[in-house]
Amino acid sequence: MCELLGMSANVPTDICFSFSGLMQRGGVTGPHKDGWGIVFYNGKGYREFRDQNPSASSQVARLVKQYPIKSDIVISHIRQANSGKICLENTHPFSRELWGRHWSFAHNGQIKSVKKRPLQHFQPVGSTDSEYAFCWMLDQIKQRFPKAPRNGKLLFRTIYELSQSLNELGVFNMLMTDSKYLYAYCATHLAWITRKAPFGEASLKDTELKVDFVNETSPKDIVTVISTRPLTDNEQWNEMKMGELSIFQGGKVAARFT
Amino acid sequence: MCELLGMSANVPTDICFSFSGLMQRGGVTGPHKDGWGIVFYNGKGYREFRDQNPSASSQVARLVKQYPIKSDIVISHIRQANSGKICLENTHPFSRELWGRHWSFAHNGQIKSVKKRPLQHFQPVGSTDSEYAFCWMLDQIKQRFPKAPRNGKLLFRTIYELSQSLNELGVFNMLMTDSKYLYAYCATHLAWITRKAPFGEASLKDTELKVDFVNETSPKDIVTVISTRPLTDNEQWNEMKMGELSIFQGGKVAARFT
Repeated sequence: MCELLGMSANVPTDICFSFSGLMQRGGVTGPHKDGWGIVFYNGKGYREFRDQNPSASSQVARLVKQYPIKSDIVISHIRQANSGKICLENTHPFSRELWGRHWSFAHNGQIKSVKKRPLQHFQPVGSTDSEYAFCWMLDQIKQRFPKAPRNGKLLFRTIYELSQSLNELGVFNMLMTDSKYLYAYCATHLAWITRKAPFGEASLKDTELKVDFVNETSPKDIVTVISTRPLTDNEQWNEMKMGELSIFQGGKVAARFT
Repeated sequence: MCELLGMSANVPTDICFSFSGLMQRGGVTGPHKDGWGIVFYNGKGYREFRDQNPSASSQVARLVKQYPIKSDIVISHIRQANSGKICLENTHPFSRELWGRHWSFAHNGQIKSVKKRPLQHFQPVGSTDSEYAFCWMLDQIKQRFPKAPRNGKLLFRTIYELSQSLNELGVFNMLMTDSKYLYAYCATHLAWITRKAPFGEASLKDTELKVDFVNETSPKDIVTVISTRPLTDNEQWNEMKMGELSIFQGGKVAARFT
């Protein structure tokens, strides 16, 4: 299994604090040492950092931890390989362009038989079932919506149905974004927390680090963080239900399917 | 105009030395301060670093300069914006997947009227003529070769013809890779050098830095570096001809069209 981390915010926000906790699970407090990756969105633009080295000892991860990259949406993943060898092309998040938007995707679980499903427009570069599932999902979306649909709800429902269909093949915990929305599908484990005024102090589980968000935020900020397991030990996280898709925009829940 | 940098090598090689010279042109010895990006390939896998801040003062660029990422192919670009505002989605190199391979592309010049050409499979995310040209080029390749052609020469000639067609619209200096080959098209300025045994000392033009490649290499290494303008002042660079496409693999010229 792997660990997922996501963020959705209404103002560009850095994720240094949460990432500091997550990267410990890549070789120190957790066994997810087979590479890691993170993608940051600013509007339609994105940038990613990836490494096949364990996050706990990665020089690139150290930079990401220290350098406050302000973003609207973030997806990160640390890997414990179970399908596909350890190499750069098998490192999440995976990205593709559809409708002139960059989509990114990270997955936790196994859905090996997905590779029997045919692909048309998108092909995997690596050998993971995760990247294959992402290509299949985008293929299905592109077939149903050759152009971006005006009605977001139709797209939301399609992504819910496709996620359910993939989850029937095994375990499909997923974070995905199309640069507008952050989609979180829970097969077994996914928890989230929304931080907004009045802000308080948070304390990481995985390393000795505390932050007082009063000093880091303005009163209008709304920031949701999503993680496989709660990252802090003094806050109340929302555990998602099995089979639930939650869709976030600007730090708030935009839609929810159960 | 912008500055391009590329590398093709027969063994995974780092580009710290050449990148140290290039990044000085992003705000110190050159005016290319509107963002920069670099993409590194290991086999089929790739990773990229991008920043809309000037490379000379970018924290991410400092990491890339100091951290020896060993790669088979590298493409880098520092930007002086002339088409499209300064933002992450307008920062080169641009990447797309075709035939299960990651393609990356960086461009120097202006070809504004390219936006009149129709697109089918690939859409730009940002507003540059460069990304549009890349989408158009991949579109044309995908239409002619729905699957990867077995005969590489046919693909090479197609890329040469498409580059010529784009160059007719303005100035099209380009570096592109499909993770197997590095394609370099020269409209006005592009120079390259192949370093192999016996290795010697090289001295950067743009900053006080020398390297003795004898200490950094093994006798079998073959490394070609391509740059808009020569990066060193004590070596003999090959200036490419106007309208020339050179294709590199494993540090050597695989094909050449003039």
